[in-house]
Amino acid sequence: MTISLYAASIPVYKQMLNSLADILKKAEAHATAKNIDPNALLQARLYPDMFALLRQVQVACDFARSAAARLSNTDIPKVADDQQTFADLQKLLADALTFLDTATPARIDGQESREIITRPGTPHERKFTCQTYLLTYALPQFFFHVTTAYAILRHNGIEIGKKDYMGAY
Amino acid sequence: MTISLYAASIPVYKQMLNSLADILKKAEAHATAKNIDPNALLQARLYPDMFALLRQVQVACDFARSAAARLSNTDIPKVADDQQTFADLQKLLADALTFLDTATPARIDGQESREIITRPGTPHERKFTCQTYLLTYALPQFFFHVTTAYAILRHNGIEIGKKDYMGAY
Repeated sequence: MTISLYAASIPVYKQMLNSLADILKKAEAHATAKNIDPNALLQARLYPDMFALLRQVQVACDFARSAAARLSNTDIPKVADDQQTFADLQKLLADALTFLDTATPARIDGQESREIITRPGTPHERKFTCQTYLLTYALPQFFFHVTTAYAILRHNGIEIGKKDYMGAY
Repeated sequence: MTISLYAASIPVYKQMLNSLADILKKAEAHATAKNIDPNALLQARLYPDMFALLRQVQVACDFARSAAARLSNTDIPKVADDQQTFADLQKLLADALTFLDTATPARIDGQESREIITRPGTPHERKFTCQTYLLTYALPQFFFHVTTAYAILRHNGIEIGKKDYMGAY
């Protein structure tokens, strides 16, 4: 027995993107109930040179889409970074989840050893296999932004807990 | 080709525990250089009912040790939660890394389908296979606490970046 590349990737991304969508719904409901300007949350950040909540969500989606595309050997979809509202972020997450559905086991499994080159031709070029790309790079990056989005909301008093972060598993 | 259970677990935990150790060294050096009481950082938290930095590190180590033990079908080591200083946390991390070295591919690989029951006999009892335990539970929990430790330090002005979080990969 071993783990398929699909099992180690797409279901994990789906679990966490769905949890992020639910967390953001709670944040929006909190803002509405307390008559808080949504931008007070969407533009909140933990330190001046860190990304704000809205950008954290965008980057989490970027990492999920790019992993799904790279592992299934298709082009990374071009998605505009023009989201401004909670509704925009919900659409962004829903679209990312739809894209993830195109990355099927048939497209991904068996690709573990295929080479992936990130930032090719730049000083930051890195060569991976699909396996090392997923485990040592793409998942740590993805979890970073999902967790930081959660942390920004907790720091701003949104009543969410670890259960919300974990989602359905 | 598929991914071994070992490859999907132990090297990832090692990467992130080493990065956490390096981040904490930078935090301690910052406190020393600025004549800051180390507890101002160790007891810092992002919200009153969230864990402080010291506890985040303890829990990250807990999740790494328990995953290594469960996947290799050995007892989870009992480790006292009596750390109080940066030096204590460095020892905790070093000990966790030493324990992870006992979870060899020979002990872990091939165990993907073995059942793991968390919190047995409690209302929170959950049944997993080794594979679903790792991917849908243990890794998301672990990344949560590593990232939150990082976020607490960034929020307190420690000069660390994503590169420090990612560690050596």
